[in-house]
Amino acid sequence: MRRTSFSEMNCPIAKSLDLIGDWWTLLILRNAFCGMRRFQDFQAHLGISSGTLTSRLQRLTEQQILERIPNPHDGRVYEYALSKRGSELFPVLLALTEWGEKWVPHPEGRRIRLLDRRTGEDITGICATTANGQQLVPLTEIQALPGPGADEGTLALTDHSKPRA
Amino acid sequence: MRRTSFSEMNCPIAKSLDLIGDWWTLLILRNAFCGMRRFQDFQAHLGISSGTLTSRLQRLTEQQILERIPNPHDGRVYEYALSKRGSELFPVLLALTEWGEKWVPHPEGRRIRLLDRRTGEDITGICATTANGQQLVPLTEIQALPGPGADEGTLALTDHSKPRA
Repeated sequence: MRRTSFSEMNCPIAKSLDLIGDWWTLLILRNAFCGMRRFQDFQAHLGISSGTLTSRLQRLTEQQILERIPNPHDGRVYEYALSKRGSELFPVLLALTEWGEKWVPHPEGRRIRLLDRRTGEDITGICATTANGQQLVPLTEIQALPGPGADEGTLALTDHSKPRA
Repeated sequence: MRRTSFSEMNCPIAKSLDLIGDWWTLLILRNAFCGMRRFQDFQAHLGISSGTLTSRLQRLTEQQILERIPNPHDGRVYEYALSKRGSELFPVLLALTEWGEKWVPHPEGRRIRLLDRRTGEDITGICATTANGQQLVPLTEIQALPGPGADEGTLALTDHSKPRA
């Protein structure tokens, strides 16, 4: 059977990608994380057509990643703000930022500096945590196993971590 | 000026996305992280056409994210393995996995369980680190500032975090 729809795959990555839509969407979200909220600001900064931006914002709103809310100063104007669901996509953008700065660097140094606002120290890596964020797990110590929602395709994939003849 | 090429943008996220290519590429990388290496295994598992898979693998090899290496048992057969550059994309897939499991859940539970292989504890979150991985930084404490490689577009974006009238 040919699989063509990401939404039908038994994979949390495919499910996420299906909802996010496309690369433009990640740049719209990047701008939203920087506090951008207005249609014309997104359009001017991203340099995309009004039609493309409209369809992406509509999709993100339908998927409840962005919320369309009236401007507090002028209720006739609508703005786009990250929902809770949308704001939890931040690790995806963080990971892409760190990889891009390291592996596709600018000759003069980082384009975006990320730091701990409490201490001013530069972020140097990403890790996972257990025990509600208390215990630090280096990425090399993460193991993937099929869970109760796994189907045959997911089982075959996680089985691949064992070397085969 | 209209921007259409991600590669020309002064943004580490856009640079990363430009190199990665498209959503299929992330699923190819997912399978590579699970230990898959052979063309026919990728094709059978992903259900994509031979032509699409060939072009994606070629792009990933050109971008030095995958390495094309001879099979140790049969030098006539080539396999695809993650390079160092490619293996550092793991946080992107980790972030997409966690988001997908939380926000697009399977009714029977997680499709993929991620755990600390040292303790068996389930991963519950993602965080950043400073001081060479020693200090844990909650994602809400990360601040983004323009770096030495920032251009006007990046400066305008990071300026957006201040509320405007």
